[in-house]
Amino acid sequence: MSPKPLDYETLNENVKKVAYAVRGELYLRASELQKEGKKIIFTNVGNPHALGQKPLTFPRQVVALCQAPFLLDDPNVGILFPADAIARAKHYLSLTSGGLGAYSDSRGLPGIRKEVAEFIERRDGYPSDPELIYLTDGASKGVMQILNTLIRNEKDGILVPVPQYPLYSAAISLFAARMKGITVRAMVIINPGNPTGQCLSEANLNELLKFCFQENLVLLADEVYQQNIYQDERPFISARKILLDMGPPIGKEVQLVSFHTVSKGYWGECGQRGGYFEMTNIPAKTVDEIYKVASVSLSPNVPGQIFMGLMVNPPKPGDISYLRFVAESKAILESLKRRAHIMTDGFNSCRNVVCNFTEGAMYSFPQIRLPPRAIEAAKSAGKAPDVFYCLKLLEATGISTVPGSGFGQKEGVFHLRTTILPAEEDMPAIMTSFKKFNDEFMEQYEDYRGYSRM
Amino acid sequence: MSPKPLDYETLNENVKKVAYAVRGELYLRASELQKEGKKIIFTNVGNPHALGQKPLTFPRQVVALCQAPFLLDDPNVGILFPADAIARAKHYLSLTSGGLGAYSDSRGLPGIRKEVAEFIERRDGYPSDPELIYLTDGASKGVMQILNTLIRNEKDGILVPVPQYPLYSAAISLFAARMKGITVRAMVIINPGNPTGQCLSEANLNELLKFCFQENLVLLADEVYQQNIYQDERPFISARKILLDMGPPIGKEVQLVSFHTVSKGYWGECGQRGGYFEMTNIPAKTVDEIYKVASVSLSPNVPGQIFMGLMVNPPKPGDISYLRFVAESKAILESLKRRAHIMTDGFNSCRNVVCNFTEGAMYSFPQIRLPPRAIEAAKSAGKAPDVFYCLKLLEATGISTVPGSGFGQKEGVFHLRTTILPAEEDMPAIMTSFKKFNDEFMEQYEDYRGYSRM
Repeated sequence: MSPKPLDYETLNENVKKVAYAVRGELYLRASELQKEGKKIIFTNVGNPHALGQKPLTFPRQVVALCQAPFLLDDPNVGILFPADAIARAKHYLSLTSGGLGAYSDSRGLPGIRKEVAEFIERRDGYPSDPELIYLTDGASKGVMQILNTLIRNEKDGILVPVPQYPLYSAAISLFAARMKGITVRAMVIINPGNPTGQCLSEANLNELLKFCFQENLVLLADEVYQQNIYQDERPFISARKILLDMGPPIGKEVQLVSFHTVSKGYWGECGQRGGYFEMTNIPAKTVDEIYKVASVSLSPNVPGQIFMGLMVNPPKPGDISYLRFVAESKAILESLKRRAHIMTDGFNSCRNVVCNFTEGAMYSFPQIRLPPRAIEAAKSAGKAPDVFYCLKLLEATGISTVPGSGFGQKEGVFHLRTTILPAEEDMPAIMTSFKKFNDEFMEQYEDYRGYSRM
Repeated sequence: MSPKPLDYETLNENVKKVAYAVRGELYLRASELQKEGKKIIFTNVGNPHALGQKPLTFPRQVVALCQAPFLLDDPNVGILFPADAIARAKHYLSLTSGGLGAYSDSRGLPGIRKEVAEFIERRDGYPSDPELIYLTDGASKGVMQILNTLIRNEKDGILVPVPQYPLYSAAISLFAARMKGITVRAMVIINPGNPTGQCLSEANLNELLKFCFQENLVLLADEVYQQNIYQDERPFISARKILLDMGPPIGKEVQLVSFHTVSKGYWGECGQRGGYFEMTNIPAKTVDEIYKVASVSLSPNVPGQIFMGLMVNPPKPGDISYLRFVAESKAILESLKRRAHIMTDGFNSCRNVVCNFTEGAMYSFPQIRLPPRAIEAAKSAGKAPDVFYCLKLLEATGISTVPGSGFGQKEGVFHLRTTILPAEEDMPAIMTSFKKFNDEFMEQYEDYRGYSRM
């Protein structure tokens, strides 16, 4: 009998080609071990609340009230909710046409797109047009929309940094079958960087934009970690600010799409799926095409849109909730900074491990210098060397990481990616457990000469 | 200078080809008129809350508490929330790993997928496996996922009913460039029907499944209106129940994917973007591929998942909120039924308009018998005849409908689609305004012989 349409052999080949390491072999094995009762520390995904981070109070109060608008008429509402949360809930409900249960415009609620534009203007010092801002179900949905608009066939390619976040390689394989003989259409930057945690300087961004101008590339700026900065030397600077600083011709010519989300920052509201993208120097006809395709999915989820509004327009000095909001925000960001240090220092104390400091974002990407005998052992086990190491780490310690090969790495060089998100009080024990595993692993696979002298 | 990558001329041609009538020319014109201050009655999208339908209280209480979990520790929570909503919020939070702010598994929360499986088993009388149920951001996202898995290249096609909901034609143009010389891979049914409002009988479903078996097609069953039934003669029966009733070979062989949502039913929670699809007779390797691709978007929004849990597991007799929940549900469904009658009767009272009763779903699809002179006038205006009629209707009355051509219709026959969702108290005035416009339009364009005699 011939295969049926949803039998594996007859599926879309581009779907089969998708590889997505963040939820790949390591994640699946970790999920199995968890089912068997092993305690797993999931550092594979930047998912702060899953590791115990508490949500910020004010935005949750506002969205809860938007979900239960009948409370706004209840004389007792003030017992559980502060007046500024009540006022803000009324404000957001007034921006909807029918509350959270109504589809919004496919680009998102106009009033929230206006708040995003005002935020961008305050951040960059240049006006921003709400009509060029589209709200999305998290940044990844926006990236997929733009890549789908850009990639015409299997001969179109996108330059992505190596190492890169595998959303990009996955989406590209989904839309483009083959990456040889290609027309390069766009360049992706992730700033602050995932998985490397670096922040791009003004000079870096200048060079990148010049390159896009010379090579006629769209710049896709993944700036979802713009709030996650753990040092003062390299603050976050948006690609858009540098582009507009450059003036014509580059500032008027280079096409830029910038992405943001409520999932990262210190909010970490991953499960809410809120995000936006902003388009700079994109012609109106293209903006309309993107609108049309967004319409097929009707509307991004409305609660996620309200989280985005709250993120770009948080409580202000003098508001009842201001001090609490600032205290909660500061506590999270300062703890993340301390955790970045504990993790980097911890990795650097391990045999054959070197690690740059996490300047921004929420990841650590140590290089693991695997001895030749470990590489041979991996080969015998039919695994890539970094996958072999990460699986052993998982089995020994419960620490679930992502092998560097999922992000791309130099030939013969091996990394892993962890988040810096485990609870601060758990961090020393995790790093001790990591060191014990790593140093024993190195002991086991190093020969007498010692790998470090090679 | 050569065009830039996001200039219209160089975009993905499949994106340009997408047509989506529900938010097409009519919707854009209606939005413009609204901006100019005209009162618009948006009956183009099934968006009940936008037309004044109030959300059901119990699910909103539960989700509000899940958004504000700190309220669960507040001794005053009982002043604003009933005990069963509090208990249910605790239940759903216990199914998450980190509350609403954490990404869930890419297939959705296992505990909610279990509640969906139990609902399907109660409905159909056959067990359902939670591992074959994937939660999605509304049904349309699930449809896109499955079509993307199925359609391999421009030679693959999908049979869709005519008239059809344009999500299907839009998604197909997105994934497949051309619809000639095609391998048909799947058949779509929408039951209860959109836009026609018909309910399929057991005999219809039997025939359709036999056809899928003979022709080796996947059946994609869009059953998002399964709660929206306005008569007793043809209750909703799921494609899955009939398939399993048929037994082998058909019951074991035909591949079926069924879609559901929280956006429709009498809940109408469109803005929350909750949905699921269930796979029957789909091989495990394919299920894994769909999981992998879903992982690229990380996770469906978690509040939407909880709405889905609540929809399949509503308050039970004896629960504190039961009577209120039932009363609210009944009021909405009975009003929808009355509105279906008002609308059908209203259309049938108009000159040159005939309309079937809306047995289910939330649409009315009257046939408008346009006189030849109206068709000529449309031609002179460069419009399709039904678009011409609908635009005139919009300008004259503010009623925003969708021309039948967006759904497909027989050559030379013209329809429009409206929802039955305007508030019941507004319905008589809307139908009076429609009749006045229609009858004057017919008067203007009919010649002396009278079109009805042709």
